[in-house]
Amino acid sequence: MATIKQVAELAGVGTSTVSRYLNARGYISEEAKEKIKNACEQLNYMPNELARAMKSNHSKTIGVMIPTICNPFFTELVHIIEQNLLKQGYKTVLCNTNGDIELERNYLNMAISNRFDGIILITGSYEFMELKADIPIILLDRINEDDLNYITLTSNNRQGAALATEHLIACGCKKILYLSSNEQIIPAKIREDMFVETVVKHKISYTVRNNSEVDIVELKKMIEDGVDGIFAWNDISAIQCIGWLSELGIVIPDQVQVMGYDNIDIAEYVHPKLTTIAQPLAELATKASEYIVRLIDKNIAPPINIQLDNTLVVRQSTKTI
Amino acid sequence: MATIKQVAELAGVGTSTVSRYLNARGYISEEAKEKIKNACEQLNYMPNELARAMKSNHSKTIGVMIPTICNPFFTELVHIIEQNLLKQGYKTVLCNTNGDIELERNYLNMAISNRFDGIILITGSYEFMELKADIPIILLDRINEDDLNYITLTSNNRQGAALATEHLIACGCKKILYLSSNEQIIPAKIREDMFVETVVKHKISYTVRNNSEVDIVELKKMIEDGVDGIFAWNDISAIQCIGWLSELGIVIPDQVQVMGYDNIDIAEYVHPKLTTIAQPLAELATKASEYIVRLIDKNIAPPINIQLDNTLVVRQSTKTI
Repeated sequence: MATIKQVAELAGVGTSTVSRYLNARGYISEEAKEKIKNACEQLNYMPNELARAMKSNHSKTIGVMIPTICNPFFTELVHIIEQNLLKQGYKTVLCNTNGDIELERNYLNMAISNRFDGIILITGSYEFMELKADIPIILLDRINEDDLNYITLTSNNRQGAALATEHLIACGCKKILYLSSNEQIIPAKIREDMFVETVVKHKISYTVRNNSEVDIVELKKMIEDGVDGIFAWNDISAIQCIGWLSELGIVIPDQVQVMGYDNIDIAEYVHPKLTTIAQPLAELATKASEYIVRLIDKNIAPPINIQLDNTLVVRQSTKTI
Repeated sequence: MATIKQVAELAGVGTSTVSRYLNARGYISEEAKEKIKNACEQLNYMPNELARAMKSNHSKTIGVMIPTICNPFFTELVHIIEQNLLKQGYKTVLCNTNGDIELERNYLNMAISNRFDGIILITGSYEFMELKADIPIILLDRINEDDLNYITLTSNNRQGAALATEHLIACGCKKILYLSSNEQIIPAKIREDMFVETVVKHKISYTVRNNSEVDIVELKKMIEDGVDGIFAWNDISAIQCIGWLSELGIVIPDQVQVMGYDNIDIAEYVHPKLTTIAQPLAELATKASEYIVRLIDKNIAPPINIQLDNTLVVRQSTKTI
């Protein structure tokens, strides 16, 4: 890679002139400008962004760490964050942690070492705390109780799960299956607790299972056993259930009603269209991108804990009352 | 952030000793090791990965640039690439270009300046050529004719589109709609050309439309006008069509047959399940991750142009013959 010295030599000017040119500071003759421009092009010279970042401590890059890119909920969220940050002059770099703590630590270290300006973090782990990192962090979507010292943005999982469960009960479900995540994911657990609280309050019979324990055979058994409502912890699981039910020839919502969570785009394309809980995705994303920039600019300070309410989106997979 | 000098002072040793410790080179007494370790922890010292990367020219990071994270085809592809690279000790950093040339250039510059070891690039533009970058690049999925000087990995879009069109014709379609992308995306265009070539060869009547020109009203008109088969350039568009057809009360595949392209996971969850073309996604991803590492290690050299064949996955949205 070419150096500033080589550019100066080829242009026939001093390195300080090249430096003035690159930083657009001080006087340079039009002739010198032209020569430097040509020399840069000829040598394919690229000012070392990194060196600048190290000096200025600003790389104009924000890292967004998500647990999986395979769930549209996260990609739709990140898409809005990216668009917003771009308008503010920030590049977004996406790191997929797969919920792996070691990998998350690795990416966090990379972000700090590479002088990223800030991090928007969706995590379930406490690893980032160990770093005691002097880097602006916004915690999004998944937080622990101990995270309240930070700036946190979540949707109200208790309220959302209550909404979903109440809807299934109002639609006449007598025995409801809560289908949970395989992994120890905080929102899945909170929704489960609230589901149980709600069905118990209404004296409705219920069962709780993890995704990995349920396949088409298991589902058939549970329906024969009286399950007439399913509340899946996310839309992906709900859509998979709809596929199995169709395969079993079970009519939705007449025989079994299905409720998802997230309102991802395809919830509207499946047949029947999925009734689900819409998280305030756009608002979460917008606030996350706004707050990280303000945190970098030091015109906001933790702790700030924002929890937004969810809405029920009634489509075809539950009965109309 | 703490410096190596501060660590040395606190540990009561010289900076060269700290340096030996950090690089695990040369002799250091157990006592000094312990002191340095404690000092690092106390000061939250983090060896500057970036400085090391600049020196060694290896950041152990590979950038993957994709046009959109909102299409599962790309996220499924990236997921496999990530998993493979991780096994080889590389972090993957994901950059979403939104098909925006300026943004793509920006990310490429960042990758080069930040000493990424290599780039896996899915692009339709020629911007990366202008950089004449001295960085290992693998071109994946979307390539131009001029790209053949590089290492390229694509699936055979002509073969895939012929397979799809022949299947619809064999299933008895008499008038087929090809639903193309709004943007100038190379694979969409190649598939269109091959579609037209195939229907013309079979003397089948046809029509070609862009996504943006078709909504539920337009689709209804076209069906009244005799369209009995739809070949959408990707699964997302096909699934949207299935949704509209269900809404119109049109029975798939009895009245209209639908064919997608990509075989994304949800193709199997929609109702009826989508007949589609499966690209050799796992093989493309595996080869991309293998080749970029070999290119970085200099035991492979361009040009290498690999084009893999696709397979037809028959499900429920087309008739069985």
